[in-house]
Amino acid sequence: MINESYKKMLGAKSVIRELSEYATARGKEIGYENVFDFSLGNPSVAVPQEFTDEMIRLLETEDTMTLHGYTPSLGNPLYKEKIAESLNERFGMNYGPEHIFPTTGAAGAIAHAVRAVTEPGDEVLAFAPFFPEYGPYITGAGLKLSVVPADTDTFQINFDRFLEMLNEKVMAVIVNTPNNPSGVAYSTQTLTRLAQILKDKSEEYGHTIYLLSDEPYREIVFKGADAPYVSKFYDNTLSCYSFSKSLSLPGERIGYVAVNPACDGAEYIVPMCGQISRGTGHNCPPSIIQQAVAKVCGMTADLSVYETNMNIIYATLVDLGFTVVKPGGTFYIMPKALEESSIEFCKKAKEYDLIFVPTDGFGAPGFFRMAYCIDTEKVERAMVRLRQFVSEVYR
Amino acid sequence: MINESYKKMLGAKSVIRELSEYATARGKEIGYENVFDFSLGNPSVAVPQEFTDEMIRLLETEDTMTLHGYTPSLGNPLYKEKIAESLNERFGMNYGPEHIFPTTGAAGAIAHAVRAVTEPGDEVLAFAPFFPEYGPYITGAGLKLSVVPADTDTFQINFDRFLEMLNEKVMAVIVNTPNNPSGVAYSTQTLTRLAQILKDKSEEYGHTIYLLSDEPYREIVFKGADAPYVSKFYDNTLSCYSFSKSLSLPGERIGYVAVNPACDGAEYIVPMCGQISRGTGHNCPPSIIQQAVAKVCGMTADLSVYETNMNIIYATLVDLGFTVVKPGGTFYIMPKALEESSIEFCKKAKEYDLIFVPTDGFGAPGFFRMAYCIDTEKVERAMVRLRQFVSEVYR
Repeated sequence: MINESYKKMLGAKSVIRELSEYATARGKEIGYENVFDFSLGNPSVAVPQEFTDEMIRLLETEDTMTLHGYTPSLGNPLYKEKIAESLNERFGMNYGPEHIFPTTGAAGAIAHAVRAVTEPGDEVLAFAPFFPEYGPYITGAGLKLSVVPADTDTFQINFDRFLEMLNEKVMAVIVNTPNNPSGVAYSTQTLTRLAQILKDKSEEYGHTIYLLSDEPYREIVFKGADAPYVSKFYDNTLSCYSFSKSLSLPGERIGYVAVNPACDGAEYIVPMCGQISRGTGHNCPPSIIQQAVAKVCGMTADLSVYETNMNIIYATLVDLGFTVVKPGGTFYIMPKALEESSIEFCKKAKEYDLIFVPTDGFGAPGFFRMAYCIDTEKVERAMVRLRQFVSEVYR
Repeated sequence: MINESYKKMLGAKSVIRELSEYATARGKEIGYENVFDFSLGNPSVAVPQEFTDEMIRLLETEDTMTLHGYTPSLGNPLYKEKIAESLNERFGMNYGPEHIFPTTGAAGAIAHAVRAVTEPGDEVLAFAPFFPEYGPYITGAGLKLSVVPADTDTFQINFDRFLEMLNEKVMAVIVNTPNNPSGVAYSTQTLTRLAQILKDKSEEYGHTIYLLSDEPYREIVFKGADAPYVSKFYDNTLSCYSFSKSLSLPGERIGYVAVNPACDGAEYIVPMCGQISRGTGHNCPPSIIQQAVAKVCGMTADLSVYETNMNIIYATLVDLGFTVVKPGGTFYIMPKALEESSIEFCKKAKEYDLIFVPTDGFGAPGFFRMAYCIDTEKVERAMVRLRQFVSEVYR
């Protein structure tokens, strides 16, 4: 018999996907340039030429059996070494290759990391606003996901609610900074306080609470933002990374778990990830992609357009009287809707061909998300439309 | 706290990996050409030039954001279409692209397929000799794996024991033909009888028993072998494929589930696989690899060396008095050891630098596996050594 729970999941259509499909259909009708689609978080800048060159070089010069053969089950040694080096240099860490486990993007990284530090039935805490895919990642591992409500004034951590919700069953806490959907980066102050609480509570409960740091937007940080490296604050941190955004490679499914060398069980966690892979059928990201990314892992695509877009949008939103926290990074911004229901607000915006995502699904209703990974020229035209929409509908 | 079950798995070293590591170390000592390493099932023939050419063409001509962007969550449409076409043409099936779910190799395919047609706690039957990774694939999905003992005369299915072991909790049966480790292909007669039993028992139990057909060696079939397409015999079949062996691409993690269009729930299973991916953090194989394989999915690497090697080895084994079933495909052969314990036999062979794998871990003790994906010249020299070993140790 087919599995009932997965079958039921088919009913729940993704709001983002529906909006994106609507935008595509509407684009066919009125011309895609006339639809201001802020729905999808898809990188909009080219992959670095160095990546393409390295791929071609590998294909032209390497023996096909080495190039496309099985990688060791814990990953390509060069990839692991280069990533450790790059992280050490940039963030003053002391990773060795043995602390790096290659994964199929951040999704794979979180799926592995969370299984490594929990037993089925344990609880994991996330902070709103949060990436809705944490739901399947966490429950798919047999765990309970509880979401700490947002601090809607700053989109930093709501520590009062966090302290209320922490309990002995919580074995891991997941953070995402810079954050999807708010664009906000957790500050030095936030991370210092979070680390202190996790240390104290680990001691009180007599077990380690691990911190899973989901950081696919780590390299998209704007001028003046306070966006420190999470693992520096708390030893028991597993950093979950993806090159999807920094190198514009989301389809190639390449990322890693970086295990803080000082964390409890540091020597076991990467080999355990190799065992976890066997059960999920994952077995390492593609060989050629690991090899090519090893060459370019210290660089990024030209990410400057995201900051340009953010500044245009933020200024317009402030000018129009929106309540909005200025993003420290990513390609998202999360203003408060101009009426109580952000769903209604987004419906009305859609009439103006402005495609925004209500953040109810991110655990923070009343706001909407704009993904500004689009051309600046289009962002500018969208701001004209936004002014028109606000003045006509909300005066 | 780190997960105890995964930590425990670290203790159990893979026999195959240990032997392969021994062979590498020994090779450094006495020269790799003097070690006859039959331990690992790694393809030994070059990737087709057409694949490499297509990869380079894509890298040189395609827009990087299309080439490396997110694929749709159910896979690249061209990949799905080309695979459906190829299977329909070669096996007289009627798959549409909607019946094909791209996966990271056969491992990913089995991990998805088995979750789609079971609920945790259900039972899955496999037939010895069987690929030991079925253990983690099946138990990793919360299922019980039971293994039907081998028919050691033919390595077809032991139907008497199968009928005894079938029960109402069995929701899926997994077959692997041509088989790792025996090299034997299930015959028309075997598959006809298997299908009839599954039909009868599905009716008796009032629920569908799905057949998971693990077929990474489908394209490595030798002259005269009766190795038909499994899904032709039984509608409720999910075919799990990998291009690892047929295109020599094991490191690129590319395969698929092909859902028989006539199976129960056919319209749900591929979309359900998309949902299953969310929980395992898998999210589709790499975009560029899907696109390149779409171009070459109907062809194979030059696989003829495997048959050449098999004929040399089989003739020698028969000549030396081994009990052995002639393989119908793959790059494996599984003779009976010359003493009761195949572990002892393999230890003694190792003294002659012949690296064989005892098949105890494959659920069929008393035999050993030779993986002959190596150069023919080396196979020939290995046969001289084998003659010496047998005559000196077993007279």
